[in-house]
Amino acid sequence: MFEARLAQAGKAVEGRLRELLAAERAGGIEAGRLGEAMRYATLSGGKRLRPFLVIESAALFGLAPADALNAAAAVECIHCYSLVHDDLPAMDDDDFRRGRATVHKAFDEATAILAGDGLLTLAFEILARPETHPDPGVRLELVAHLARAAGWEGMAGGQQLDLEAERSKQDAAGVARIQALKTGALISFAAEAGAILAGAAAEDRRRIRTFAEKLGLAFQIADDILDAVGDAATVGKATGKDAAAGKATFISLLGISLAREKLAQLEAEAIAALAPLGARAGVLKEAARFVARRRS
Amino acid sequence: MFEARLAQAGKAVEGRLRELLAAERAGGIEAGRLGEAMRYATLSGGKRLRPFLVIESAALFGLAPADALNAAAAVECIHCYSLVHDDLPAMDDDDFRRGRATVHKAFDEATAILAGDGLLTLAFEILARPETHPDPGVRLELVAHLARAAGWEGMAGGQQLDLEAERSKQDAAGVARIQALKTGALISFAAEAGAILAGAAAEDRRRIRTFAEKLGLAFQIADDILDAVGDAATVGKATGKDAAAGKATFISLLGISLAREKLAQLEAEAIAALAPLGARAGVLKEAARFVARRRS
Repeated sequence: MFEARLAQAGKAVEGRLRELLAAERAGGIEAGRLGEAMRYATLSGGKRLRPFLVIESAALFGLAPADALNAAAAVECIHCYSLVHDDLPAMDDDDFRRGRATVHKAFDEATAILAGDGLLTLAFEILARPETHPDPGVRLELVAHLARAAGWEGMAGGQQLDLEAERSKQDAAGVARIQALKTGALISFAAEAGAILAGAAAEDRRRIRTFAEKLGLAFQIADDILDAVGDAATVGKATGKDAAAGKATFISLLGISLAREKLAQLEAEAIAALAPLGARAGVLKEAARFVARRRS
Repeated sequence: MFEARLAQAGKAVEGRLRELLAAERAGGIEAGRLGEAMRYATLSGGKRLRPFLVIESAALFGLAPADALNAAAAVECIHCYSLVHDDLPAMDDDDFRRGRATVHKAFDEATAILAGDGLLTLAFEILARPETHPDPGVRLELVAHLARAAGWEGMAGGQQLDLEAERSKQDAAGVARIQALKTGALISFAAEAGAILAGAAAEDRRRIRTFAEKLGLAFQIADDILDAVGDAATVGKATGKDAAAGKATFISLLGISLAREKLAQLEAEAIAALAPLGARAGVLKEAARFVARRRS
């Protein structure tokens, strides 16, 4: 069930992103190459895990997938902007992503910087639109939460700490804290956004947040394991980079075996957080299993 | 009167930015170097013309300056983020700004990219806060307008077109269109934001927008003139760059003399747009004179 629903969410959000980023939409203004780069960055596949979380969390609390699509697209814009900027030569300096040239390689650095800026800004523009939710108060709540999740106290702050971690000693708690910001904050927002859209009760919002926090950390540990043992062809991007950079990861600190144990524990905790929600939460529980066991 | 009010607005918004970017605020998370770079980028002076426009446009329609400060700070965050990214080596490659090292020179490129991202995101976080305006609908309207002004159909799109203009032939209309996006969109938003905050009538909002559009273009022509005839010590940044890059500007297309005529015409049109608002608009009319006649 999970894989079909993930594919469904991915297809739906890709369709919505295509509409939101359509060249025709720009009216008198030919954003030209910038629009092209923004489409290249967002319409090139990817797992679409964050949009899936928005849509399925909304569905869990009774909202139809179509009514969660704008918020899902906004979250994906933020995710894709972060990849474009993280891939830049001054940051992680990656030439390949999802098996093809990164944005600054396919276009140029200036365009990649602006495409990231454009996608980051577009996310808030999308959330503010009436079709995102009929209640302006709900849309504003999404804006406030997304800004905190993506900004200096969230994803951007985590990326800064992660870059600095190459030059500083980190223990497992430090790495967990950095990852909670760098990847966890946006994953948590995605899951909570669905609950916000659907008007879920405060305690249910807490449950879905706990689930997403565990899921986010599991996602990162699985990523570290893939970086350490996967091969570039399967993973679709360069592997072995962390070890080469001498960077502290869960693997370098715990070793593969303990890291796998930690991963299994997080999977169990994520699933347990959803227990009070019963069978309705089945597909999200499957998502936790998938994330912990993914091979690419 | 104008210069005192500009200084007053500048001081007030700098104080608010200082609070919003206080190190202590980040709670458990030490954004550390990223927070430092964001403060360096925003608390280093500058004319604060955009915050002034927010505050004085709000005052024109009866709102106290203190009640426009958050929106003013948000606009300044966007302006400062755009300077940080525009100064990057891959973009305009500037080492100095306001007489001191640009962010990527004082810190490093990765930190400068993230500081820009952080400030862009923070602008929306600030607008979403309850203290920005008691009505969530008004806050959401500010978010929607700012996102359009700053994004691919506004400032970011204009910067892309401006970079491409170095490689393409532009006429005066093309340059005006690029500048309307690159600098005009945010200046227009600043002026309109004050009117939105104060709940101004639709026709008054149109007047203030027309004023700001003229002002924005005047600002850019004055900037081009300074780049062509000013010296770096007075202007606080490198001059003569446009000519060296062979880039089409109002100066290269019209010559200094016609550019000065165009500037005087825009000044008159900006002031005329405010005529129906009477003496209350005095300080904004003075702003148009100041922008058109500035020497740094």
